[in-house]
Amino acid sequence: MKIDVCFSPALYPVYHNPEAIVVVVDVFRATTTMAAAFGNGVRSIRPVATVEEAQAYKAKGWLVGAERNVKRCEFADFGNSPFDYTPEKVSGKDIVFTTTNGTRAITIARSAYRVVTGAFINLHAVAGYCLAYKRDVVVLCSGWQDKVNMEDTLFGGALADILVNTGLYGTGSDAAVIARDMWTNNKKDPAGYLELSEHIARLKANHLEDAVPYCLTLNLTDKVPELVVTEDGVLILR
Amino acid sequence: MKIDVCFSPALYPVYHNPEAIVVVVDVFRATTTMAAAFGNGVRSIRPVATVEEAQAYKAKGWLVGAERNVKRCEFADFGNSPFDYTPEKVSGKDIVFTTTNGTRAITIARSAYRVVTGAFINLHAVAGYCLAYKRDVVVLCSGWQDKVNMEDTLFGGALADILVNTGLYGTGSDAAVIARDMWTNNKKDPAGYLELSEHIARLKANHLEDAVPYCLTLNLTDKVPELVVTEDGVLILR
Repeated sequence: MKIDVCFSPALYPVYHNPEAIVVVVDVFRATTTMAAAFGNGVRSIRPVATVEEAQAYKAKGWLVGAERNVKRCEFADFGNSPFDYTPEKVSGKDIVFTTTNGTRAITIARSAYRVVTGAFINLHAVAGYCLAYKRDVVVLCSGWQDKVNMEDTLFGGALADILVNTGLYGTGSDAAVIARDMWTNNKKDPAGYLELSEHIARLKANHLEDAVPYCLTLNLTDKVPELVVTEDGVLILR
Repeated sequence: MKIDVCFSPALYPVYHNPEAIVVVVDVFRATTTMAAAFGNGVRSIRPVATVEEAQAYKAKGWLVGAERNVKRCEFADFGNSPFDYTPEKVSGKDIVFTTTNGTRAITIARSAYRVVTGAFINLHAVAGYCLAYKRDVVVLCSGWQDKVNMEDTLFGGALADILVNTGLYGTGSDAAVIARDMWTNNKKDPAGYLELSEHIARLKANHLEDAVPYCLTLNLTDKVPELVVTEDGVLILR
């Protein structure tokens, strides 16, 4: 079996593998926030692509998380910080969620065998999910507006390292080798390494860097959000 | 000033900077071969996108280099090996050239301020060219059929490292940081590092790995092939 890492949604067509499990990652912060929300008992998350769709759900009475360019949209109940999704607010609830990059990446991959979301806080759980299915894996990095980013690539490398180290997986392409090397060279200090990243600069500029250490903590939850189509044809994570 | 590294032609729209010098790289082997051909006295290289165009030039009596999937096209005078372009064969000549990845990448970037081709064999010359213009630089990796590859990314890192070390350039995005780290971690043994790469496996499978050490040798020529439009509107390197 092979694990591959697709560095940007714009590259997904050439990394698409219909038989694979796709792990969508947006470390800062959408897929970390999703894992945190499920860890805090959320029942489902409905990813939507546009702010307009999210607003329409809000008008119908839904709880809505919405972020654009790192900031919470005014109308929304939650932004894109994992700290917004407390057990008191989300336990047992269904939520609508839209973010700049992460929710779009999820819908791009919908035709794969399975789509799940991954982050450092559920890394081992995601690896366990992949190993249970014994299938090829493609990590889809959300990036930033189709540009490559360091943090999602680093997660791809971390997952590749775990799967390759089992002896059951090989790297599927040069991209997976690059990502795995990035992880093995920096796993002792991911936070120090990512100090150079654009997105941490972007979060700091908006005083939103409080969640960075949380986003880089390994294995805080065993939840693996999985994309499913409901009976009425809606994509949800559950 | 900034140096950025675009990991695939498919990502070029998001890294495009009309004011920048674009350095197109296809280490194995198109841009190495181009630098070698200029080093051996070729007068111009006309990059064409398709095999059919190259065949039409051949029928008109041109010298033609043509490669697809690492192999020389039957009709062509030369393949994609730098060793094909000897001084005896190319000195003072105008050549038509088409390759799987490299020649396409060159035409994608044509609207930039300047387009040149780079490879390890003319690395310092390319860096000198950039420093003479004092402009932003975008390294466009040719990749393999839009997938990211290790060798072109490594070249991007090498050029980024030289320019950033002058103190005149910063890295333009996370991709440039990733590439530069790859170079600084592997510059002592690029050949050993690239043993894991897909393209070396592809060359070996076709018994075409003889040029690999040459492609990874630094600074064998001071030529920098530059894309220009002729009076009759044809793109050529000279």
